[in-house]
Amino acid sequence: MFEDMARNLTGWLSGKGDENMVVLSSRVRLARNLAGCIYPSAADAATREKVVGYFESMADRSDLFARGKLLRGNDMTPLDRDFLVERHLMSPGFMKDDNSRALFISDDEQVSIMINEEDHLRIQAMSPGLNPDSPHEIAGKFDNAIGKHLEFDYDSDFGYLTACPTNVGTGLRASVLIHLPGLVITKDIDRVISKITKMGVVVRGFYGEGSDVLGNLFQVSNQNTLGVSEKETLQLIASVTRSIIAEEDHARERLMREASEQIIDKIWRAYGILKHARVLTSEEVMNLLSAVRLGVAMKVIDCVDIPKINEILLLSQPAHLQKYYKEEMTPDRRDFIRAEMVREKIK
Amino acid sequence: MFEDMARNLTGWLSGKGDENMVVLSSRVRLARNLAGCIYPSAADAATREKVVGYFESMADRSDLFARGKLLRGNDMTPLDRDFLVERHLMSPGFMKDDNSRALFISDDEQVSIMINEEDHLRIQAMSPGLNPDSPHEIAGKFDNAIGKHLEFDYDSDFGYLTACPTNVGTGLRASVLIHLPGLVITKDIDRVISKITKMGVVVRGFYGEGSDVLGNLFQVSNQNTLGVSEKETLQLIASVTRSIIAEEDHARERLMREASEQIIDKIWRAYGILKHARVLTSEEVMNLLSAVRLGVAMKVIDCVDIPKINEILLLSQPAHLQKYYKEEMTPDRRDFIRAEMVREKIK
Repeated sequence: MFEDMARNLTGWLSGKGDENMVVLSSRVRLARNLAGCIYPSAADAATREKVVGYFESMADRSDLFARGKLLRGNDMTPLDRDFLVERHLMSPGFMKDDNSRALFISDDEQVSIMINEEDHLRIQAMSPGLNPDSPHEIAGKFDNAIGKHLEFDYDSDFGYLTACPTNVGTGLRASVLIHLPGLVITKDIDRVISKITKMGVVVRGFYGEGSDVLGNLFQVSNQNTLGVSEKETLQLIASVTRSIIAEEDHARERLMREASEQIIDKIWRAYGILKHARVLTSEEVMNLLSAVRLGVAMKVIDCVDIPKINEILLLSQPAHLQKYYKEEMTPDRRDFIRAEMVREKIK
Repeated sequence: MFEDMARNLTGWLSGKGDENMVVLSSRVRLARNLAGCIYPSAADAATREKVVGYFESMADRSDLFARGKLLRGNDMTPLDRDFLVERHLMSPGFMKDDNSRALFISDDEQVSIMINEEDHLRIQAMSPGLNPDSPHEIAGKFDNAIGKHLEFDYDSDFGYLTACPTNVGTGLRASVLIHLPGLVITKDIDRVISKITKMGVVVRGFYGEGSDVLGNLFQVSNQNTLGVSEKETLQLIASVTRSIIAEEDHARERLMREASEQIIDKIWRAYGILKHARVLTSEEVMNLLSAVRLGVAMKVIDCVDIPKINEILLLSQPAHLQKYYKEEMTPDRRDFIRAEMVREKIK
């Protein structure tokens, strides 16, 4: 499963969009629950199955869901699930316990909907660059389409009700995936994170909550969903992101002014290792790509472009690599094949 | 001074000769003193001057010395002296105090003679590969030529008398410069050094006595000069070197059997960094070249050859780099220009 998907760069990594030299993508997630149904974590499998059934019959009646597929846990191997996590189409651990959870993916991969994750429905959309309005509009379409057929748990005072109180209200989490090597190298990152945290945003690693920062990629998302409008949330993320970009640009300029030789050296060495290494872990590739991405943004290097960097980033991940080569691999074999793939792509 | 010399690869680094995949060069040094003259360290400058004078008038009367030059300390800047040390034509610190010491260099650089170093005369010859007989023959010619005009301090029981008792007898030090990355990586080097030390040889770093091991290059030379013949000494060095080569070959085979991916990766990464780095210290170049040299020897890499590796090794040294580019440089500037030179040479 997914071998063909692995051969295509997912849309949010196209490298296009506003501020694409710093911001990889914008994401919006809407948490929704169905009125009168026990929430997934408290429900038994049969009750969860019913919710999947409601979703299925709704989807059958909606044109919007025609170009997409509904996947069940039973359809998938652990490798398939890892693949979907790497592609940011679902959260880690989802659908691994039984068959009472499901995932809808639109054919263009712009939208994915987790059914019976923490909430009954988690509608997610992603777009390249800094543009949270775009995934919001896309997710909103699916939200409306579902709302025409199914009744959401909604309180006129609070707004949408959710399993975790941190999502009550709009149920909206808007986030951007942002590349901040300048702030990491100048060690200004902690100061910037501390500053923006006070503005009501949260900073996480590449794979979301609880994940490590890899390749200097950070996810910035809104903290609050209660007492704010969707519009305010989108504006907050856009404006905080612009202030981070300004800090990052400032750090990059300072680096080029004060340590240009060292930075240029770091960039070219990273490129040289990617181009010639015979063994590469995914973490190392992410860190080397971070330097090369910085090099492209700072016009130090022009023999690779951002889409190519994104493609290598995506394919370097363990499940992607195995799907791409249609082969199950041990970690050692992956490190060897990953280096081969990187050399081939960067040639 | 020496700018033109810096543009030519010195003969002993031609990359030719027996066992050239492990042994860079063979060297012979003869210590000689003139009968009836106080030894250099005990003599005053005027007395030392006299010895230089004896040498000069001897050289004037001998055809062998026609194709060469006699250099005095006053002729040289500190950079010039560093250059000659890097080229292994004289020992570190030589000629830096006053003008009463001199250095003869043959035009082909096969022979150099230090006058008033530790002994009155130190005649040295170098050849590429494992072949101590060749520099011995060359040094012997100059030894004989000098002996025709000047009387050496010689004792019928002891042999040649020298300033330090460790040189009394033959006055002969034969050595090879040998590349042992396999034994270093497998950590067998200490065992091998300990074994050969018992056979009457000494192991030193790249720049001789007291110098560090850089780029896995070792100098192996005989310990004894008393009670052994010249022939026995040359045979000892050749046979010990052959046994080290066997150990090194064994280590390389083991590496390729047990960790070929890691070794091949190490080799290609070194090449990638040399090819792309913008800042390189001389120590790093020596260590990276060591990996690339191993790669050439093991037929892992064929886009560079041994003469090219030797050329980069030579030119990476601080004084060579400055002579090559005809510019005095700060250490930071050298690291930058060195990387430029390496990229240019490896292209």
